[in-house]
Formats: sequence, structure tokens, C-alpha cells
Amino acid sequence: MTESFDAVEVIAAKRDRHELTDPQIDWVVDAYTRGIVADEQMSALAMAILINGMNRREIARWTHAMIASGERMDFSSLSWTTSDKHSTGGVGDKITLPLAPLVAACGVAVPQLSGRGLGHTGGTLDKLEAIPGWRASLTNDEMMAQLEDIGAVICAAGAGLAPADKKLYALRDVTGTVEAIPLIASSIMSKKIAEGTGSLVLDVKAGSGAFMKDVDQARELAETMVALGNDAGVKTVALLTNMSTPLGLTAGNACEVAEAVEVLAGGGPADVVELTVALAREMLAAAGKDDRDPADVLASGGAMDVWKRMIRAQGGDPDAPLPVAKETHVVTAPESGTLHRLDAMGVGVAAWRLGAGRSRPGEQVQAAAGVVMHAKPGDAVTAGQPLMTLHTDTPERFERAVAALDGVYDIGTAGAEPPPVVIDRIG
Amino acid sequence: MTESFDAVEVIAAKRDRHELTDPQIDWVVDAYTRGIVADEQMSALAMAILINGMNRREIARWTHAMIASGERMDFSSLSWTTSDKHSTGGVGDKITLPLAPLVAACGVAVPQLSGRGLGHTGGTLDKLEAIPGWRASLTNDEMMAQLEDIGAVICAAGAGLAPADKKLYALRDVTGTVEAIPLIASSIMSKKIAEGTGSLVLDVKAGSGAFMKDVDQARELAETMVALGNDAGVKTVALLTNMSTPLGLTAGNACEVAEAVEVLAGGGPADVVELTVALAREMLAAAGKDDRDPADVLASGGAMDVWKRMIRAQGGDPDAPLPVAKETHVVTAPESGTLHRLDAMGVGVAAWRLGAGRSRPGEQVQAAAGVVMHAKPGDAVTAGQPLMTLHTDTPERFERAVAALDGVYDIGTAGAEPPPVVIDRIG
Repeated sequence: MTESFDAVEVIAAKRDRHELTDPQIDWVVDAYTRGIVADEQMSALAMAILINGMNRREIARWTHAMIASGERMDFSSLSWTTSDKHSTGGVGDKITLPLAPLVAACGVAVPQLSGRGLGHTGGTLDKLEAIPGWRASLTNDEMMAQLEDIGAVICAAGAGLAPADKKLYALRDVTGTVEAIPLIASSIMSKKIAEGTGSLVLDVKAGSGAFMKDVDQARELAETMVALGNDAGVKTVALLTNMSTPLGLTAGNACEVAEAVEVLAGGGPADVVELTVALAREMLAAAGKDDRDPADVLASGGAMDVWKRMIRAQGGDPDAPLPVAKETHVVTAPESGTLHRLDAMGVGVAAWRLGAGRSRPGEQVQAAAGVVMHAKPGDAVTAGQPLMTLHTDTPERFERAVAALDGVYDIGTAGAEPPPVVIDRIG
Repeated sequence: MTESFDAVEVIAAKRDRHELTDPQIDWVVDAYTRGIVADEQMSALAMAILINGMNRREIARWTHAMIASGERMDFSSLSWTTSDKHSTGGVGDKITLPLAPLVAACGVAVPQLSGRGLGHTGGTLDKLEAIPGWRASLTNDEMMAQLEDIGAVICAAGAGLAPADKKLYALRDVTGTVEAIPLIASSIMSKKIAEGTGSLVLDVKAGSGAFMKDVDQARELAETMVALGNDAGVKTVALLTNMSTPLGLTAGNACEVAEAVEVLAGGGPADVVELTVALAREMLAAAGKDDRDPADVLASGGAMDVWKRMIRAQGGDPDAPLPVAKETHVVTAPESGTLHRLDAMGVGVAAWRLGAGRSRPGEQVQAAAGVVMHAKPGDAVTAGQPLMTLHTDTPERFERAVAALDGVYDIGTAGAEPPPVVIDRIG
């Protein structure tokens, strides 16, 4: 890093709607990571980026600079080709759990470096930690050995990947600058490119329970990330998927693991199966290995075998009973008819308030807390039937969880089509 | 302060182009002053304000909240009516020095709380400190006694006025958020309203040596501040004045004091006399006391008497010789003709580099450093005649000062009108 800039000069450039140059971007990301550019300077720059935007070249360079701030992994020594999936997060999104073993069972290794949840969207590691004995942290050597042996690993991302992103994300979270598409795209893609996956499928969600409420914004984010990945030599495609209503019938931790296991056993809710298979097909195609149909492999039980080996390799017992909540509370249908709407955000907030999620990084979550739904949009319901069962170990939480469900569903007299799962494909 | 908000919620509101409510503004300014809202949050908000703007109501409330962060002064116990002047800063702007005693000599007291300079614009206190013995710091009681006795005081603003502004200004300086008209206007006006002056005349400068390069932006700032002052019960008017070329023939500290004394003695450069008299007329009119013409008072020597008493009251010797620089360097005219242009910013930077200004708050300045000009735009010059004389105690500074003057003047063959001093009046 030979060139040096003044932080105010870089901030002023973006403030005044100029393009940032490559050396400016390299310098500001590096200097921020090293503490030379202060938090209050980066937050002003982040706000200017949020409002004034960045073009594709700037976003690509920003991503490159974040990758350069840390280590890169390399899976080229594996005998497998690799493919990874990233979801922008939603309510009831347990897709990674059946997907990783399914894709491995089809012959493509899945190195899934995941995170913990924050707010109303759960985290994959939180869900898997509901399994007795399972541990999220692996050394790089353990991860590589498991990938070679089983073809699937879901573990915590190490601190060495894109440290600039970790620091910047924590800053954006407290400064109202999370909602910047250039920064969201570069945050996700810097980690995924640094991780070294051979190909990548993005599940970009749109709707009330998603980060992007609006389909057009979700599409812009998806297009930006697909371009970033392909430009960096990672074959990348995206599915634009529906997050107006929860995925499946569960939102929580243990309850979502149970639903994932149902899918691996050949059952489970239709929307979870549909999205799992759709994403598996994309991952196999992106990896250039589409000789097997994941729907057949799922039906054959091959994915369940990989799942059990994957859980055992990380200390978990896939056959042990999952934790059960101490208390439950049933929400009943107030009238008969067809469930027209069941809002993802409301269910997500209820699960969070029951103890399934956290408000601050580092907080404990309850393994058994969550919401189990008994109907999905399009289903007929009868007055008085259970609509949702709320689970928690701490019953004082019921009141605020029930309050979160106020007005989140509509029951009508006409029939209703369930919303589509996959809205579009980009790539 | 009963209502409380989340900082991110307030930032997001302005980011998304919403109006901030009165309680949001009160809370965020107070919470920032008390350290509850962090620097990185306020800088993100400042950038959102800079880009998305604030309406008149928001600016008025922001100003009110900054005033409420500290103490307010009260001049109602004086037997005088009061009027104050604020300049947005320029090169060679020594107007406060003759103006305060002139207005006092006309019967209106001037409580001039001033600051030190930063960058290419000098500070009034720096200039006066060139006078042997003069001190800038007075207690409130000393200031009130001097005002009652003499009618004029120029001293350092106490730390108790608008502490929110002090903290916010330091933050804006390092985060590229100085250039926000709502924040500039509320910064200036919060201090002036808290100071308790009965009326206020603003000298809003436009041109290369001013903070606002552009007349339209300067006009917008002037209109915003005039509305803020009048809404707060302080009769406020503004003159929009030219800062494309330096005021007078000096830019520095001691040399500007000498020029101010020339004006008080009935001489001095025409533009300095014109602006001093124009601002004095506005101040007297704003204070409702326009029975005497300041041009006559200046000619009579009455203002010089007040000047000497004012300087002596603060420990200074108005008859002592002013410091003289150890070294001088003469810049000569390369050709004969009419001086068409002499750029304010170039001369200001040269004076700064000679040691008259500072780069960081707290740095020492040289009393005798500066630029003495021998011609102004419109004047005829002859090849080889002195155009400017550079003064400094540290001759190693000449090279960079001369470099700052590269290309800052044009000599042409046709005649040229000097630029107007006062561009417009707002109020």
C-alpha cells in the first residue's frame, strides 16, 4: 500500500457524487481495518455510499479490498468440486440443513461457513447447536478433512476471513447504514470469495420477513452479487425467493432441525422441499455436475446418510431426542375459512421474543424456543383449531410473543393460492 | 427531556428523507452532548443531513437544541442596546477591528465574542494578539463591565455557550460534513443567539477565499440564518459580500491591525472603509439607533478613541509598535498593465504558509507573518514594481508561500473595474 489519502478527501468525493478511484478504495478499507481511518469517518463514508451509491467497478474494488484485508481459503486440494449457498436470511429458513448433505450426496462438496442469528432471523449455527453434542467451531484442518471424507461441513467462519467486513458490519449496525446495497453485496461476497468456493448459489429473499422488503431491491442486490462473483472467477447464480410468509411450518432452533430431518427423510413441508431441491439443482449445475437429480437422491435416503455422518463428525448425535420446551401456548383460529396471509416478520419477531433469537451478538438463545405453525397460506382452517403453538422455557415471554402476532394473519372466505416459492432466477 | 429514541431510528429517518420531529432533534442533540449518541452515529446523521437537507423548522429546532445544551448570556442589564456582527470568514477580513469601536462610538454596544483562525482564514483574536499586552480571555463580569464602560469588547467566547456545537463542529471537521448549510447555519446562530445580542448583522462572503465559493449557496446560507435569527427574536440582517479577492491590502495579523488603525484614523483601503461603514449602518439600523452616520463618526476620530480605550481595557498598548517580521520577500509584477484578478484563496494560503495561520487548533501563529499587497484588482501596475511583500520570521517558508501565489493574479491590457464589495442585502 504505497498511496495514501486523507480520509476527509475520500469521504468528500463520495459525498459529492464522484466515483471513488481504485487507490482510494484500497486505502480507505485498509486504513479503516488498521484503525487509521476512525469509526466516525467510516460511518460518514458509509452513509454517503448508502445515499449516493457506488457503480459496479467501485463495488468490485471495495469487495476486493475487503478480501485483501484477511486470509483466503483454498479448496483446490480436495478431490471434490465445491459449491456453496448463501441466503440473505429469512424466517424459518432452515434450508442449509437438508441442502448441504443433499448436494454432497449428489457428488459436490459443500463448505458452508455460517453465522449466528441476530434479531428476527435465526442463524444456521444456532439451529444446529440444538442437536446434543454438536459443535460449530472447527480448525481449518478439521474442516478440510471432513469435507474430503463426507463432502459437507457446516461450521463457524473463522475470524481470519475479511476482517474489514467484520469491523465494518458492526459499525453499520449502529449507524443506520446497514441498508446500502453496495455494502451488503460486498460484505456477503467478500466472505464467500475469500472462502474459496468453486461456485456459489445465492438465495436472495424478498418480502416482509426478509432484509429486502421489496422485490426490485432484492433483484438489484442479486444482480450486483452475481456480477461480483462471476467477475471474481466464482460461477455465481441467484434465486429470488419469497419471504412474505415463513418457510415451512417452524421458526426456531430445535423445531427447525426436526423439520429439516423430516425433509431428509422424504417428507416435510412442500415449500421447504421445493426450495431445497431448486437450490441443489442450481449448485450442481454451477459446479458442472448435474448427472443426478437431487429430488431422486432425497427420496432414496442418500442425503440422510450424509446428514448423520456430518452431524456425528462434529460431535453431535443425530439420533438423540431434540430439546423440548418447558411451556407451550396455543394460538387458535378465530374463525373458519382460508388462511390468506401469515406474515413472516410477525412470526419471526414472535420466535425471537420466545427466546429463539438474540438482540445483541453473544447473547444465549433457547434451543427449544420457537413457533410451530399448523397452517400455511392457502390452507383451510376451522374456528378454534390451533393456528400456531408457541414454545419457550420462560413463560413470561408469551405475552410479548402473542402481541407480536397481532394482525399478522388474515382468514378469508374465498380460496387462496399459496405464494410462489421461487420468484425468479438471476445468472 | 422525557422522550427517548434509538439513535439508529433517528439516523434512518433522515437517511430516508423524512423530516425529523422536534422531540427527535431535542433528543439527539442532547444525547450526543452527553455522550449517549456516539461520534460514529452523529457523523452518519450529519452526512444524511448534508445530503438530504433539513427544512426551516428542523433547522430552527436543531439550533434551539444546541442553544439549550449550554448557558445563555443576557445583556438586558446594560444601559446600552446591543448589536453584533458575524462574518463567515475571508482573507484579509479585519473588519471587526474598526467596526466594533465605530458602532460603539455611534451609541450601540458591540459584544463581539470571537474565535481563532484555522486554515487560510485568519481569526480576529489572532490579529488582536499581535498588539503587545492584549489578552483575549475575559470573565463574564469583566466583559459586562467593559461593555457598560466603553461599549465595545472583542474577546474569546466562553466554553459554556452551545457546547453541543463545539463537540459537533470538531466531529464535522474530520468527517467531511462541514459543508452542510443546515449545520453551518445552526452552528453560527446557536452561538450568536445564546450570546444574547439584541440584534445581529451577518457578513456572508462568497468567492474563492470564502467558505461558500458560490453566490447562490452563500445566499441560501444567509437567508437561512436571517430566518433563524428573526424567529428567535434577534433582529437579523445579512450582507452578501465579495470574497473573490482579499479585503484591503493586508492578510496576516499585525499587518491587518495596522490597516484597521489606518481606517480608524480616517484612511485605509476604500473596500475596507466601505464594508466597515456598510456593516455599521446595518448594525445601527438593526439596533434601532441610526441618528448618526458612521462615516462621519469615523472621520471625526470618535471611533479611534473607543478603539484605544477598548485595547487598553484588555491590557494592550494601542500606541506600542506592532511586531515586524524578521524577513521579507518581494513578488514583482512580470508585466505592465491593469491587475485584473488577485485571488483571495491564493493570498490566504500564502499568508497561512508564511506562519500567519494554523493547520490545527492550538497551534501558535506568527504575529508579524503575512502578505502586504501593493495593488488591488483595477489598479494599474508596471513591470518590475512590487506586487506583494511576504513577511515571516522563518524564511524557509518563502518557497511554499511563493508557490501558493502561482497563477493567482492576471495582468491585462484593458482597464478593469474593481469587483463590488457588497453584492446584496438580505433581511
